[in-house]
Amino acid sequence: MKFIHTADWHIGKKIHGFQLLKEQEEVYRQLVEVAVKEKVDAIVIAGDLYDRAVPPAEAVLLLNKMLMELNIVQKIPLLVVSGNHDSSTRLATGGPWYEFLNFHLVTKIEDSLKPIVLGNTQFFLLPYFEPIDARLYFGDASLTTHELAAKRVVEEMKKSFDPNYHQVLVAHLFVAGSLRTDSETEVTVGGLDQVSASVFKDFDYVALGHLHNPNASRHERIQYSGTLLKFSVSEANQAKGFKLIELTDEGTLKNTFYPVESTKSLRVLTGLFDELTARDYYETQKKDDYLFIQLKDTQIIPDAMNRLREIYPNVLGMERLDKTGLLSKMGQFNKEKIQQSSPRALFEKYYQEVTGDSLSKQQTDLLTTIFAQLKIEEEDQTQ
Amino acid sequence: MKFIHTADWHIGKKIHGFQLLKEQEEVYRQLVEVAVKEKVDAIVIAGDLYDRAVPPAEAVLLLNKMLMELNIVQKIPLLVVSGNHDSSTRLATGGPWYEFLNFHLVTKIEDSLKPIVLGNTQFFLLPYFEPIDARLYFGDASLTTHELAAKRVVEEMKKSFDPNYHQVLVAHLFVAGSLRTDSETEVTVGGLDQVSASVFKDFDYVALGHLHNPNASRHERIQYSGTLLKFSVSEANQAKGFKLIELTDEGTLKNTFYPVESTKSLRVLTGLFDELTARDYYETQKKDDYLFIQLKDTQIIPDAMNRLREIYPNVLGMERLDKTGLLSKMGQFNKEKIQQSSPRALFEKYYQEVTGDSLSKQQTDLLTTIFAQLKIEEEDQTQ
Repeated sequence: MKFIHTADWHIGKKIHGFQLLKEQEEVYRQLVEVAVKEKVDAIVIAGDLYDRAVPPAEAVLLLNKMLMELNIVQKIPLLVVSGNHDSSTRLATGGPWYEFLNFHLVTKIEDSLKPIVLGNTQFFLLPYFEPIDARLYFGDASLTTHELAAKRVVEEMKKSFDPNYHQVLVAHLFVAGSLRTDSETEVTVGGLDQVSASVFKDFDYVALGHLHNPNASRHERIQYSGTLLKFSVSEANQAKGFKLIELTDEGTLKNTFYPVESTKSLRVLTGLFDELTARDYYETQKKDDYLFIQLKDTQIIPDAMNRLREIYPNVLGMERLDKTGLLSKMGQFNKEKIQQSSPRALFEKYYQEVTGDSLSKQQTDLLTTIFAQLKIEEEDQTQ
Repeated sequence: MKFIHTADWHIGKKIHGFQLLKEQEEVYRQLVEVAVKEKVDAIVIAGDLYDRAVPPAEAVLLLNKMLMELNIVQKIPLLVVSGNHDSSTRLATGGPWYEFLNFHLVTKIEDSLKPIVLGNTQFFLLPYFEPIDARLYFGDASLTTHELAAKRVVEEMKKSFDPNYHQVLVAHLFVAGSLRTDSETEVTVGGLDQVSASVFKDFDYVALGHLHNPNASRHERIQYSGTLLKFSVSEANQAKGFKLIELTDEGTLKNTFYPVESTKSLRVLTGLFDELTARDYYETQKKDDYLFIQLKDTQIIPDAMNRLREIYPNVLGMERLDKTGLLSKMGQFNKEKIQQSSPRALFEKYYQEVTGDSLSKQQTDLLTTIFAQLKIEEEDQTQ
């Protein structure tokens, strides 16, 4: 059994307002290439296909196209579960039709208990679920945590274990002891959603989704694939890609990581503003990467973000490394001083800072007219 | 060729806040029964499967279940186009997989031009589209109206007409000379979206969706199926159901209307308030129908809607038949008179009208306290 293990595609995700569909298709292409070249028996997608329950229409279109190519054109069986970012109901549309072409999409606990047999392996597809789902399904009020619920589900799966086959679990959850980053989820509370690795000890391989780092798990047979793209600054230094898993009849496991790269990467640039905006520096850079800028400066840099974006169009964000230094410089702009200035003076100052120029005669006249008008309206209202 | 012609399911539609999923499933069941009993060769659904582009999850679940039963369980070919209420992209998810079981779902002009052959018939599936879509697809800037665009599309379809077969068009549009009601669409401007019946003269049958009245068209071979449920008061007197169409090899057309009925119907009740709320009247009524109440009264009836809903839980709305009479009675409540009353007097009067009782001693005391409190706060704010 030779299959690709991938997860957390998050199709339709935006970072800081930037649409990633193009990059998502690029890295997907690299996965298709390997799948075809390696003649894999299946592709496992361990949840979070979409970035949200109601994805935008472009995302629906793209995912449909991706899955169609893999399953209908390339005729590769797909083993897919829904993640916490997916709407299980929406994702499941069409499910019963998919089965006819060996596209197995599981979005409910009850459908996870019956294995799907491909080659020498029984696959169990466990979607993301909450303890309440397990309580309802098993009618067992004691399943109050992710740990207890997962244990119960695995117990049930083990009833169908056939010693003539290997057992692979596909799941979307957080295995205790794994490393988190920022972008996986915002709804979990530290610790409560963890499941001990020991729960999964009887599986030959556990193909996980949820965490975005391919090295998030320390357990050889319990692995995260990681995402195909960097989705947050905390992932800037992670390798991104998917895993090719081979399970021989004898039970040997081979895990090969295939890195992927989109033309626009996500990187952190660190330096002084003047350094980062110097021509001989930026001409050595891939300027259209998604960049997060860390400035070492301690003085105020008027309109820094816009000036950076003139050079680097895809700046995601900016932070100051020496915040204390900056704050002391900011003293001259404290609240009292601002309140003492007239709105007109503040406007002139702001204009100068942003453009580097003073107001022209025409602009000054216009400003005078506007402020006079505002004053009349104000007096009208207080009468 | 024997097929069911239905359309405008509008799964997920609410009327005046009432969810209709249960009723939608009920009438659908009646359609399934006929489909199975009559051993139809296909079921045509001419658009507006959902009520909106992003339907609620329950609607997605229900429609998926309905189509699955017809296509996978009963193995009946489905011929489906998207309507103006559907999102073509969202609806199309899974489309390529559906084809394998003869579930043909067309959401784009380009896919309408190639016929689907079943038995003795070529089916052309034309989804709802705007003239702009035709301009883009044909690269022809002259296609500025629905009429011109439809003409162009049909011209293109005719290139594939095979004289050995009948030709049936499935479409979601407004044929000129048809009768509209309220609930079809709110975005059309009178006349501009009409297509002449003559455009379709070469088809043996045109199975339309869009208008909700099964008798909306005067043309024998160009028919609307109408909806399965009443969706607005203007449809209260329409028969609801679907059509069974039979096209013999010789070209004879047989059109049989199958009425359906949900346990909760939509009706209009007309009368005086006292008549409609009299026990010996309402006990003869199906009180949980969706009712629109027309009152003949000319006096003010305090809290009429709530009092009607105590008897008839599913009142959709209420109107006065004699508005002039009512308005003259309302004279006593004109703006000047209300402004002259104190808020406290108005409150007391309102309480009395709604409950029929005066305020108790305790309530009067409470009111005094509240008004005193309000006065203090008001003075605080103006200081």
